[in-house]
Amino acid sequence: MPDPTERNLKTVIEYDGTAYVGWERQKNGLGIQEVLEEAVHTITRERVVIEGSGRTDAGVHALGQVASFRIEKDIHVGKLRLGLNAVLPPDIAVLSIEEVAADFHARRSAKSKRYRYTILNAPARRPHARHVSYHFPQALDHEAMGKAAHHLVGEHDFTAFAREADQKKTCVRTILEAQVVRDGSFLHVDVVGTGFLYNMVRIITGTLIEVGVGKRGAETVPALLRSKQREETGYTVPAHGLALVHVGY
Amino acid sequence: MPDPTERNLKTVIEYDGTAYVGWERQKNGLGIQEVLEEAVHTITRERVVIEGSGRTDAGVHALGQVASFRIEKDIHVGKLRLGLNAVLPPDIAVLSIEEVAADFHARRSAKSKRYRYTILNAPARRPHARHVSYHFPQALDHEAMGKAAHHLVGEHDFTAFAREADQKKTCVRTILEAQVVRDGSFLHVDVVGTGFLYNMVRIITGTLIEVGVGKRGAETVPALLRSKQREETGYTVPAHGLALVHVGY
Repeated sequence: MPDPTERNLKTVIEYDGTAYVGWERQKNGLGIQEVLEEAVHTITRERVVIEGSGRTDAGVHALGQVASFRIEKDIHVGKLRLGLNAVLPPDIAVLSIEEVAADFHARRSAKSKRYRYTILNAPARRPHARHVSYHFPQALDHEAMGKAAHHLVGEHDFTAFAREADQKKTCVRTILEAQVVRDGSFLHVDVVGTGFLYNMVRIITGTLIEVGVGKRGAETVPALLRSKQREETGYTVPAHGLALVHVGY
Repeated sequence: MPDPTERNLKTVIEYDGTAYVGWERQKNGLGIQEVLEEAVHTITRERVVIEGSGRTDAGVHALGQVASFRIEKDIHVGKLRLGLNAVLPPDIAVLSIEEVAADFHARRSAKSKRYRYTILNAPARRPHARHVSYHFPQALDHEAMGKAAHHLVGEHDFTAFAREADQKKTCVRTILEAQVVRDGSFLHVDVVGTGFLYNMVRIITGTLIEVGVGKRGAETVPALLRSKQREETGYTVPAHGLALVHVGY
């Protein structure tokens, strides 16, 4: 039973993950979760556990990570947001906070997540995009990549698209949307799913890049899924091109 | 007379100005010009002077700064670009290089410049935009700001929009375009002119912000121009929201 004196808060967070070991508290460096928990303590004097919708890896960004936590203090959510943003470092910000029902939980209540992987597909580097895109200079056929992505939509066993060390009991996941969108020199790989395996979006993107350069055909994706072998799929692209865009509830 | 053994090169450069004292070589820190000259020396073994289309201040960015320089070495411009981007730091990149007529000069040949000042006009900070936008949380009336900006178009004496220490013999300049564009939470102040005074776009933007909050009326701009008094116009907004977008020839 939830404690009736506690308020349950849902918050949407943006962060530049460049300087962090990822969302989770870790021994080898600073996690975003930890920074947020310290900020809540500074403002409310309460020690809270902030539950994220899920981890993001070292260097991965979020435009709309969702987290939930419980506090006792009777502070207005708008004031709490202002206070947190005043003490948080410039690379983390709380975009919104709202009070939610006692049974809301950022991870367990999540219905879907939208990730975006951004590729700079142009001959020259772009300094302003250096922390949020992966520079791939060779020309990519984004239409072929989009056709390949389309084969991922639906319920499939994604064992071949998970890091081997983290292959779970079941690697069956449902992808609701998978698109490749060109915006000038940038290609966005947009993937929406009900759940993701470790490194899954980065392995999907590496595989799509191999389709984009003509090393694989778009129509080979169903066979890759059936293989359930990590060595059949493409390389894991670097973390810094990836962002958690939205969590659906 | 230009030396016939020399090649005259025009280059377009993007940089994140956060870490630099500005375009020009200075004693108190690193200028972008200096970093580029060192990179050209590393690749070509020639000591060159790189002329920019104009200065940008400390912290100001460029999406399309143009510079010219002369070299003797018979190196292909595509190879030179690749070489420079390999040795330049991640916050500076050469987008293109082309060989141009001997009389081309990045500053003297420039016909117009386009600047963009970006305001984040939303309650919460946005970490990904922190180096390239000025956070102004109070709601801004961008239509009133656009009307005020429109009064700047044409040939005017911009003394009131120049830093006092730098008011030149003549402060008459021609503005070709001045617009305020809203893109979600971001407001862009886009100004195109044949020439600019020191801090001019930043003082224009500070004045437009004062219109946007209702402190001034859009119709007061002609009187501000006539006053020729710096104390009549708005505050100088910070450098990090400003970018040199394009130089016309």
